[in-house]
Amino acid sequence: MVFEGSEKIIELGIKSGSPSLRELSYDFWQRVVASAGADIISHISNEDCDAYLLSESSLFVWPNRIRMLTCGATQLSNALVMLVEILGVDKIEYSTYQRKNEYQLQSEIRSFEQDLVQIKSVIPGKGYRIGHLDSHHHYLFMAETGQLLRPLKITELLMYHLTGELAQYFRSAMQTKSEIRRVLGLEAHFIGFKFDDHLFEPCGYSLNGIKGDKYLTIHITPQEKSSYCSIETNLDHEVLTSALLHQFVLQLKPERYDLIAFGCPLLEMEWVNELNTHSCSINTENGYDVHFKHIHQQHDLPFTEVL
Amino acid sequence: MVFEGSEKIIELGIKSGSPSLRELSYDFWQRVVASAGADIISHISNEDCDAYLLSESSLFVWPNRIRMLTCGATQLSNALVMLVEILGVDKIEYSTYQRKNEYQLQSEIRSFEQDLVQIKSVIPGKGYRIGHLDSHHHYLFMAETGQLLRPLKITELLMYHLTGELAQYFRSAMQTKSEIRRVLGLEAHFIGFKFDDHLFEPCGYSLNGIKGDKYLTIHITPQEKSSYCSIETNLDHEVLTSALLHQFVLQLKPERYDLIAFGCPLLEMEWVNELNTHSCSINTENGYDVHFKHIHQQHDLPFTEVL
Repeated sequence: MVFEGSEKIIELGIKSGSPSLRELSYDFWQRVVASAGADIISHISNEDCDAYLLSESSLFVWPNRIRMLTCGATQLSNALVMLVEILGVDKIEYSTYQRKNEYQLQSEIRSFEQDLVQIKSVIPGKGYRIGHLDSHHHYLFMAETGQLLRPLKITELLMYHLTGELAQYFRSAMQTKSEIRRVLGLEAHFIGFKFDDHLFEPCGYSLNGIKGDKYLTIHITPQEKSSYCSIETNLDHEVLTSALLHQFVLQLKPERYDLIAFGCPLLEMEWVNELNTHSCSINTENGYDVHFKHIHQQHDLPFTEVL
Repeated sequence: MVFEGSEKIIELGIKSGSPSLRELSYDFWQRVVASAGADIISHISNEDCDAYLLSESSLFVWPNRIRMLTCGATQLSNALVMLVEILGVDKIEYSTYQRKNEYQLQSEIRSFEQDLVQIKSVIPGKGYRIGHLDSHHHYLFMAETGQLLRPLKITELLMYHLTGELAQYFRSAMQTKSEIRRVLGLEAHFIGFKFDDHLFEPCGYSLNGIKGDKYLTIHITPQEKSSYCSIETNLDHEVLTSALLHQFVLQLKPERYDLIAFGCPLLEMEWVNELNTHSCSINTENGYDVHFKHIHQQHDLPFTEVL
């Protein structure tokens, strides 16, 4: 009934002194991506990073770190387990796995609880929930393999139920990649970035951007009943300002959005007619530092629906 | 991680002139209950109705109508399909199937979408959602077998995340059936009712009550992480007053509650510190009349949790 746009996300850092993850072959990454149920569509590289655009989201590979996002009914925990088994758990400095509460049961998908059992069978760590059980919440696994020596510095802006003109445009047959980049101001805001983007049939848009060791990834699933757009990046807050995030929110007019930050504070945005918000943080003994905020606006969506 | 206390509910009315459903044997109802994955624990009867207490909630059988509720990982749509197949779809005056959005994926359970395909294979009708997709919402199937000739007049009060002393008592080893009936004032409020109740191990309480063709059923799953209490009845609003419902809410102190009414208006309750509510109604061409309201209070629950 609804398309599950929310991405599951894995992140893994290896200890210094380990061989570079970028030396692993294209075939290797193809197998990792396939283990989650996705394919590689295209890839770009620069001196610091390889960025793969996937049939379901994205994979980024740095010398000592990978980050992979997959949406829909993918089983991303398989990829995490495969990586830990091949790299060796003693080489892992840190690892996280993130998954939003889904809109609907999909019998082919494991529950987070089942993912947790699978992941803990290869790497020690704990499961957490951030956000209220009855509202938007996200499940997190955070490995306990030692002290986190580098702040992750990731900001995720997850926007649900896009409304307004731009949301309509994303559903239209006229849309083009260049026009999407233009209306979102991507070249203007992310100067010097190399982009790789893809338009899906009948709709849906994915973009990877890299500049040095900085990445940006945007995924839009504009399907009427559960439209969604995620923007995430490791850009510093001098570039990724709250004004810039606010601009995306004003353009895409989500009914609700989640803001998640790892290793840096949440960027504060003011929004008129906020109905309700909740926020929380987790700081673990191993040095993980996670902040979450859920915001919702006036309700535009109908409260009843014929399925 | 959480116990899924919310009941799935089926309701089925047969056309006048059909043989009484009460003439069907105990063995027959045992098979119906087993098809959903539950067992009969005990039963009571009066001149109008048979009330079965189940390992997962309740079954009520009147001459021309049945209503069955099952909680947890039961597959109640099986029972509806079995009943329609045995009774004959041409004998069905009306039918509904109700299911709340679950807290978590359980791979052994079908999705509502899958239930809908199964149900529509034996009886025509439509699926609906009531409530916001991102908050509490309930899925409904309503059969389209003709015009609904009798108002259902059912009120459901569904209370989530019970707090305070009574919630603690429901989790304690000291609880007794008679004390639960006493503190909830059941004998005092529901005069002349015949009751049948059961205390589960290690916790959980179910009660059926009948008086003529009126029924009352209460189910409490007090488990800490997802405590829940449902009260539903077809009592007239002269007996089931908003003051009485309000008293239950004040005693059980749920963080959130849903009020659902079929064939009668919602009873209005005032509650201090309401944070947010939403409400909606469905009126179908066939004469189904459903009202829904979701209310939540201040947040007592932690926003983060270690799983």
